[in-house]
Amino acid sequence: MDRASDEKADTAKTRPAFARWTGATNDVTRTFLAAGQIPDLINLAGGLPAPEVYPAAEIAEIARRVIEQHPADTLGYGPIEGLPELRDAVAARYSAGPLKLTRANVLITTSGIQGLDVIGKVLLEEGGIIACQHPTYLGALDSWRTRMPAYRAMMLDRNDCDPLALFAGAQFAYTVPNFSNPTGKLVGMTMREALVDAAHRTGTWLLEDDPYGGLHYDSEALPHLLELSAQKNPGVPYDGPVLHVRTLSKEVAPGLRIGWVIAAPEMIAALTTAKQGSDMCTSGITQRIALEALKGGLIEKIQPGVVALYRARRDALCAAMAEHLAGEFDWEIPSGGMFVWAVARDLRLNTDELLKHAMKAGVCITPSSVFDAAGRDRRSIRMNFTLNAPERLREGVRRLAVAMRSLQTGQS
Amino acid sequence: MDRASDEKADTAKTRPAFARWTGATNDVTRTFLAAGQIPDLINLAGGLPAPEVYPAAEIAEIARRVIEQHPADTLGYGPIEGLPELRDAVAARYSAGPLKLTRANVLITTSGIQGLDVIGKVLLEEGGIIACQHPTYLGALDSWRTRMPAYRAMMLDRNDCDPLALFAGAQFAYTVPNFSNPTGKLVGMTMREALVDAAHRTGTWLLEDDPYGGLHYDSEALPHLLELSAQKNPGVPYDGPVLHVRTLSKEVAPGLRIGWVIAAPEMIAALTTAKQGSDMCTSGITQRIALEALKGGLIEKIQPGVVALYRARRDALCAAMAEHLAGEFDWEIPSGGMFVWAVARDLRLNTDELLKHAMKAGVCITPSSVFDAAGRDRRSIRMNFTLNAPERLREGVRRLAVAMRSLQTGQS
Repeated sequence: MDRASDEKADTAKTRPAFARWTGATNDVTRTFLAAGQIPDLINLAGGLPAPEVYPAAEIAEIARRVIEQHPADTLGYGPIEGLPELRDAVAARYSAGPLKLTRANVLITTSGIQGLDVIGKVLLEEGGIIACQHPTYLGALDSWRTRMPAYRAMMLDRNDCDPLALFAGAQFAYTVPNFSNPTGKLVGMTMREALVDAAHRTGTWLLEDDPYGGLHYDSEALPHLLELSAQKNPGVPYDGPVLHVRTLSKEVAPGLRIGWVIAAPEMIAALTTAKQGSDMCTSGITQRIALEALKGGLIEKIQPGVVALYRARRDALCAAMAEHLAGEFDWEIPSGGMFVWAVARDLRLNTDELLKHAMKAGVCITPSSVFDAAGRDRRSIRMNFTLNAPERLREGVRRLAVAMRSLQTGQS
Repeated sequence: MDRASDEKADTAKTRPAFARWTGATNDVTRTFLAAGQIPDLINLAGGLPAPEVYPAAEIAEIARRVIEQHPADTLGYGPIEGLPELRDAVAARYSAGPLKLTRANVLITTSGIQGLDVIGKVLLEEGGIIACQHPTYLGALDSWRTRMPAYRAMMLDRNDCDPLALFAGAQFAYTVPNFSNPTGKLVGMTMREALVDAAHRTGTWLLEDDPYGGLHYDSEALPHLLELSAQKNPGVPYDGPVLHVRTLSKEVAPGLRIGWVIAAPEMIAALTTAKQGSDMCTSGITQRIALEALKGGLIEKIQPGVVALYRARRDALCAAMAEHLAGEFDWEIPSGGMFVWAVARDLRLNTDELLKHAMKAGVCITPSSVFDAAGRDRRSIRMNFTLNAPERLREGVRRLAVAMRSLQTGQS
């Protein structure tokens, strides 16, 4: 080793350490976002919409128009909270019955993930407690990792789940009630009432993440926790304990990176301070496009086609699973969302290992370990049905069956 | 008080506390972003570009074209690190002489502030030490507030400033070498060399924030710390201790919310993990617009006009100050950037108080307290000259002179 190399090694050694949370992170999301670049890999792992449903021509024309007509709004700095007109449109969209929202209830965010990030910044000290639906959306775990929270698992489909006990001492509770990620399950009305009741009685903030509320294939989504909370405590503006997070990624296009948080005004004010230090304000270009999409009925226009496409793909995936995987996994057919959650019958199956075999067989699924804050659950997999056409879904399941046999016979 | 109010009060009392940092934040930025809505207020406070320089027609047409031609890139999820083509374009833009960058050196961020936020997430534990140019960009203080860091002030224009001593034990050092915010000063070559030398010798990360490098009115900007570091340690890709943060907000348009961080690949990998939990990826729409702006020469096309406009406005502001404020303040004429920093001759002047009188007189300036991590400096003000036309700048200074007299005579 020459002297220059020695000096370089010394320099590297003395560099300040990265924050501890960086050692506890997952690299699965990155692998999956990059998986699109592996030739012929069938990606059943991500939570990706079908690109063919993006209303590209409409959005291209809207983008041109809003920049020409509103150069100051689209190209300048805007209010941290979001464009007033967009906040008003979001408030109006939700206001019905006892739920009455004003602009003061709405923060526009740069994606749903940013909503989760700023909520963590405002509510979590290091080691703060989150009562968390289990299994849990990976992106939520990612967004709070920097605060190194403690998780209290809520099994919302079990009869012995007691929100009142689980909420005590928690900074907030987190749930995806409509077609949960990763399980695709709908949290039932009894549990919704129990969650909202517990939030009102304990004062704990109740975070309702609702990216999939518009993607229902067999029946409507159930009432938002936000609505149930307003029934208990009507008033203008809404001042209850529910924080409702939504994104336009699933219903319009992820590339907009537009979402919002609806909450009590004091919470919106605190979240605004956190957003100020996160990105100052959301792009006026994408906000104005979102406003046109909301006002001009673009979501309603494309939704029937999206729902029909995704319903057919869900059916294709589940039919292929019944044909190829019925002996190894149990699952429920989800009535909405983007995912099927399959639990291995063999208690010893390690789905982290299955993923390795699956990648070799040319298919990518998400192992359950990444949806467990403790990283222990190795028995299940999440499969997405929205990205791929039916024939690709069937081929993906065939490849997964090959991977299962390869794993079981110990080949690598 | 009726029973319902009692219950509501009880509920509010039991709500979990917000994280401690929220009690230590500033609300000045929000006041200033909202100041645009007060009729006839002359805003000399913000760091806002002149809206008339935004190339709105060009960007409108680019937006339409890139969405039509690249629907998957613009409307879908993209790689967390940014679009490969944009990372390549940024790498190519900086590569010269001993500085050789590849895509692995570049993270695209949703604004420059997001760059600062993810750097804080990766490098700061609560209470971590930052060696920080004083006075300091308020947005940087905001972005790191959630980690409650300890600041070590670096007075870079003083001869007794010793970076080597100041860097010891710091997680990183922070500086805006070109036309600093808030002072408008250029950090000289000797101090630039000393900063880079200290970073190489101590291993401490050196954060170079460069939003104003393109806005020079009398002479060119000086070499980047990134270039000086590469001279000490050439190699492909760059692997030294400098993190270079840039935004397109000052040279194209803030509404794009596009910036980037250039750093060693190991740092980019860690920052990518932090960005994953911040907003997953930056909008493909704004990234593709930025790519066209870089590739198509839009920045170079508009820069001469921007520089000429801002030079004339700087001269107008400084001439008005010489006429109305020469008895009360000292300042240097900045050779670039967006701001004049004026220091009161009266040691007892409190510019927080001056701001109140100024708002009543119809002009808004930024008091020095917000640029001091300790909040103690009350003697100076920052005035922006880019947003307003010369006549408004002159009227703003006249109003500020009125506010000074009102403060000095104790009227309120």
